[in-house]
Amino acid sequence: MNKNSSNTMALAPNTSNKRETVCIFGTGDFGRALGHKMIQSGYPVVYGSRSTQISNLIPKDAEVLGHAEAAQKAAIIIIAIPRQHYNFLTPLAEVLRGKVLVDISNNLKLNQYAESNAEHLAQLLPGSKVVKAFNTVSAWALQAGTLDASRQVFVCGDDVEAKQMVMNIVRALGLTPLDKGSLLAAQEIENYPLQLFPMWKFPIFLSLVLTVFFFFYCVVLDIIYTYIYEKNNFSFFIAITIPNRVCPVMALILLALVYLPGIFAAIIQLYRGTKYRRFPDWLDKWMLCRKQLGLIALAFASLHVLFTLVTPLRTFVSWRTSKRIISQVMNNKTEPLNHTNAWLSDSYLALGILGFFLFVLLGITSLPSVSNNVNWREFRFVQSKLGYLTLILSTAHTLVYGGKWFLSPSAYKWYLPNIYILSLIVPCAVLVVKFLLIFPCVDKPLTQIRQGWERNPKYSEQSNYIINKSAV
Amino acid sequence: MNKNSSNTMALAPNTSNKRETVCIFGTGDFGRALGHKMIQSGYPVVYGSRSTQISNLIPKDAEVLGHAEAAQKAAIIIIAIPRQHYNFLTPLAEVLRGKVLVDISNNLKLNQYAESNAEHLAQLLPGSKVVKAFNTVSAWALQAGTLDASRQVFVCGDDVEAKQMVMNIVRALGLTPLDKGSLLAAQEIENYPLQLFPMWKFPIFLSLVLTVFFFFYCVVLDIIYTYIYEKNNFSFFIAITIPNRVCPVMALILLALVYLPGIFAAIIQLYRGTKYRRFPDWLDKWMLCRKQLGLIALAFASLHVLFTLVTPLRTFVSWRTSKRIISQVMNNKTEPLNHTNAWLSDSYLALGILGFFLFVLLGITSLPSVSNNVNWREFRFVQSKLGYLTLILSTAHTLVYGGKWFLSPSAYKWYLPNIYILSLIVPCAVLVVKFLLIFPCVDKPLTQIRQGWERNPKYSEQSNYIINKSAV
Amino acid sequence: MNKNSSNTMALAPNTSNKRETVCIFGTGDFGRALGHKMIQSGYPVVYGSRSTQISNLIPKDAEVLGHAEAAQKAAIIIIAIPRQHYNFLTPLAEVLRGKVLVDISNNLKLNQYAESNAEHLAQLLPGSKVVKAFNTVSAWALQAGTLDASRQVFVCGDDVEAKQMVMNIVRALGLTPLDKGSLLAAQEIENYPLQLFPMWKFPIFLSLVLTVFFFFYCVVLDIIYTYIYEKNNFSFFIAITIPNRVCPVMALILLALVYLPGIFAAIIQLYRGTKYRRFPDWLDKWMLCRKQLGLIALAFASLHVLFTLVTPLRTFVSWRTSKRIISQVMNNKTEPLNHTNAWLSDSYLALGILGFFLFVLLGITSLPSVSNNVNWREFRFVQSKLGYLTLILSTAHTLVYGGKWFLSPSAYKWYLPNIYILSLIVPCAVLVVKFLLIFPCVDKPLTQIRQGWERNPKYSEQSNYIINKSAV
Repeated sequence: MNKNSSNTMALAPNTSNKRETVCIFGTGDFGRALGHKMIQSGYPVVYGSRSTQISNLIPKDAEVLGHAEAAQKAAIIIIAIPRQHYNFLTPLAEVLRGKVLVDISNNLKLNQYAESNAEHLAQLLPGSKVVKAFNTVSAWALQAGTLDASRQVFVCGDDVEAKQMVMNIVRALGLTPLDKGSLLAAQEIENYPLQLFPMWKFPIFLSLVLTVFFFFYCVVLDIIYTYIYEKNNFSFFIAITIPNRVCPVMALILLALVYLPGIFAAIIQLYRGTKYRRFPDWLDKWMLCRKQLGLIALAFASLHVLFTLVTPLRTFVSWRTSKRIISQVMNNKTEPLNHTNAWLSDSYLALGILGFFLFVLLGITSLPSVSNNVNWREFRFVQSKLGYLTLILSTAHTLVYGGKWFLSPSAYKWYLPNIYILSLIVPCAVLVVKFLLIFPCVDKPLTQIRQGWERNPKYSEQSNYIINKSAV
Repeated sequence: MNKNSSNTMALAPNTSNKRETVCIFGTGDFGRALGHKMIQSGYPVVYGSRSTQISNLIPKDAEVLGHAEAAQKAAIIIIAIPRQHYNFLTPLAEVLRGKVLVDISNNLKLNQYAESNAEHLAQLLPGSKVVKAFNTVSAWALQAGTLDASRQVFVCGDDVEAKQMVMNIVRALGLTPLDKGSLLAAQEIENYPLQLFPMWKFPIFLSLVLTVFFFFYCVVLDIIYTYIYEKNNFSFFIAITIPNRVCPVMALILLALVYLPGIFAAIIQLYRGTKYRRFPDWLDKWMLCRKQLGLIALAFASLHVLFTLVTPLRTFVSWRTSKRIISQVMNNKTEPLNHTNAWLSDSYLALGILGFFLFVLLGITSLPSVSNNVNWREFRFVQSKLGYLTLILSTAHTLVYGGKWFLSPSAYKWYLPNIYILSLIVPCAVLVVKFLLIFPCVDKPLTQIRQGWERNPKYSEQSNYIINKSAV
Repeated sequence: MNKNSSNTMALAPNTSNKRETVCIFGTGDFGRALGHKMIQSGYPVVYGSRSTQISNLIPKDAEVLGHAEAAQKAAIIIIAIPRQHYNFLTPLAEVLRGKVLVDISNNLKLNQYAESNAEHLAQLLPGSKVVKAFNTVSAWALQAGTLDASRQVFVCGDDVEAKQMVMNIVRALGLTPLDKGSLLAAQEIENYPLQLFPMWKFPIFLSLVLTVFFFFYCVVLDIIYTYIYEKNNFSFFIAITIPNRVCPVMALILLALVYLPGIFAAIIQLYRGTKYRRFPDWLDKWMLCRKQLGLIALAFASLHVLFTLVTPLRTFVSWRTSKRIISQVMNNKTEPLNHTNAWLSDSYLALGILGFFLFVLLGITSLPSVSNNVNWREFRFVQSKLGYLTLILSTAHTLVYGGKWFLSPSAYKWYLPNIYILSLIVPCAVLVVKFLLIFPCVDKPLTQIRQGWERNPKYSEQSNYIINKSAV
């Protein structure tokens, strides 16, 4: 009974005003930084080290002892040594029995080992309670006190009490613990700090390739062609005119690419007559990066708005305006207002403004804190209904603006179609197919399929097999 | 003792690397989707079904057994059957004793039953530990793996350990559990996925009605009147000119409507001499949707900014500019700079810019992640002080711009006041009354009342009765 | 055994549908507001008061008893009395033994007492379980039901179960509990509601001083000088022209000031040859308010964009355009397009647009909900790489626009340099030094130092002493 209670004491949160002692194994950079921070937060810190001579780098208020002695002084031991040296801990198994071991290690590559460092540690010392924590925090920022970035510390472990103790330390250091569940989550937590925008890589790569292509397409048609046939040097178009042609084209195409995979998915489901079959891999991946595609499209749309709004400030534009007015004066005639042009110009501006406004709204609802506050029904309403409305308005904006170029022969310089025509292919295709899909004769079977109905149950048996195989 | 320990074992998070078996009652769409996801996340899954013949829709790695057999294999049983069939579970009460039952059901209507499904389940099986979870997640998204929307799973239940176990599963599936407390929260959690922006309905309805009214008011005065009396067809004003007249008017009125209920509340409290009496229902509801009104006002203000900034790009405007310059040339005279007009135009632009800037700042601070990081004092400072400053700047912007129309007789076409005059009524009223309320002779008693002082204690006795009645 | 179990019962979350009774000591404003809200949420409430005669201000459904009697009826007692009267509770120590006491008190000044109110209460009644909560919630908002601001309630305490019970009440009232750890966090929680943007004070003060200085600098050079020497009254420049000169200057300087402390830190570390020495205090403080400086710079940049975009709408600008065109007509000559000017104007506009675009991106990633979703590596990438790119683009934007003034003698009115020249000093200095720091011969030792290498280990021994002293 006594033994039990003493054991419980070690694990119970301190009820006196004194913080419990924390032991740190390893006097490397991160171990020292963490020790400094803990001493600042009121924790007595004892270091476990092979050489007990006090290094001048170790916080002065910390004690330095041998591993076994240090471990005996604390209920929590922070393992600030690399995974390769974990074997050194096995002789200490008896001392570490029942103690909370905090694994703070990181790897150099994603999925470097078959099992996470924390699980490896738990297997080496089955009598201890391993908790993964602190690996997402930068030692440098911890020491400098300038934690501008995320203050979140992912914590996972199989023992609830041990996890609570570690989370209390995290809180005391001014950080926010985030419980990620059992120790199985350690692999994910160890991979986390190694990522550099993994979901953004393909969308950004695609955008770059398309941007470069359209940029040179415009340079050829607007600058080189004009220079050769009209002897006009419009090289300064590179700065604003051409970017302002590429940006709206990119925004429109990328926005259409957000809704294209949904169209493909509907067609595949209609064709197969079941939803219980995994989509092809490329479609799965495409669907997972729709948000990123949409946000890049929004970035291009914002640039387009800025490039358009500075138009009246450009020297070239004010020169062209002057020239037009002066030539009217010279010819001694005033042109009447062209009502068709007034309608067209006001319409495409209004369509563009409304489309951009809805696009920004979509962007705001995709902020994590906003999307966490809407339920699934609301999210679908915004992203699907408002999203398609945005696509319709943007396509209409481009059609009204660029429509005149479709039939004009001057639009086909060197037999190449104008960039507006290219930009409209994908969005128009998406809108036409989507329009067909909402016809009752198509929508009804699709809805049934999505609710679980199957045209050909035999078919899905295979598919299930496929799902399970790929899941394993 | 042995029994206890085995019982504890069932409830303790697994300390080995294997996930504990999960049982799912019901092989419907959501049951299957959840099973697939759990198998992918490493959980052994066993289905409880009336017919134990293996349906081809069930994940292949899952076992299918009778209800009782399946339940015995797991500590957690997910009840994926509709509430109407919960009675079928009562014969299994003995098998389910001590087990964690996860109620994932949803209803078709808000508050469909007097008590939530989870509470109903808990009453049917008092020996089991009922936890509500997963009902806010879409089966479709779970299966497709495209959980773009909220990854939050609301969890509630009376047993802390049972809740922890369910929350660990939620985390293992890559979702974020949110503890909503005891099982009494189940009603709220079951209503949550049925909502479609409940707080936004009235503000959006009000905005639509007002927008339609002002739009037609402008069409009549600006297009029809001009067409009849001046024979000018300005129908293209519908696209930009009139929206850009309606948007600022709406923004200003809605912003004033955000601060009007606070004014009413102050007057009511001053009149009653106590704060311990419930406000009328309409005022309570109005106060609760101030944030939404403010954000819609911000949307209108943003549209106004965009509509204004594209002005120089409009065909009509460049035609008007040309005409003005050419007529000056024809008359052979250059007009000197009108300093009053220069002052007026620069002033209302500057006031509008500052007002819009502060308005956007207010909008940013109302983002959940930002407002969660400010304390009550900071929030009040921003929303009250900066909010009134925004209202003052916006009203001044409109006054400087539209002031000239007040006295001009041409502003009263068909004896109707100009839209600017209409737009200024509410904001000016709010600002005047607010100005009166900050006078010491009014502010002092109001502050006392808000700190709990009562002019007539007798009065409030009644009011308390009212509060309690409405609270029940 | 029986006693224990009854004790456990009192602490266990209720498994029946009835909420457990809550006792409130004190019938002041906050006590009553909390009681009202709890009754609304289904909690039986009993007030502990010196005079048991029912005050008409107390919720009618609540019971009012003497302190001891009231306390016996509930497991949780909310202490809604001021700290000064905590001594009155000591005679009740026996009744309160084992009970959960919720300290909701606030102070009038930061760090008013050496120990927090909650810790003081815990010392007075060592047998009770003290939990700090609710102090960040406004009584007024609680009663009015209009909790627009943060719904977060900070909770801390040494007893995990007691904390869970209080957090369940918080959730039941529709608020979000945030566990801040042990009772040692109470001091911080009690200071929280007294803060008014503490991190923003210095950046805002600095911005105001600089803004006023540059504003008057511009007024002197652009209005007074012009008035004296050219007899032109351009007083209306105060509204837009001069703000649009001050805003970009402020944005550029503040953005450079965000990156200047990092430069200083690198130089200091290179000079000292170690990172284990605390930076001077002014540098530490400066580094901690970089985010705020950056956001204020973004605000100035946004204002600059708005002020610039309204340029064509200004009466003065359209008058100037007319004058220019008319004078060309009068002189009967049309100017050809000046290609250099076209290049310059388009370049600085494009640079400005790209710079502003990246700046907004930086601002978005500094939103708490976004920065919580990126890891340390991603955050550094955005804030450091994209941040410097923004600074380079903004500086280039200013150089291209203002470059012509550097050498022109007319730029030195009254021997004072043009404001553009002043604005470029800090950003150019930062960029030049940063450029030097990324040379391999400088970058290599710096990286080594930041990884823990020391040029002169002796040196750091002193420094450690300094760290520890300042940490105590």
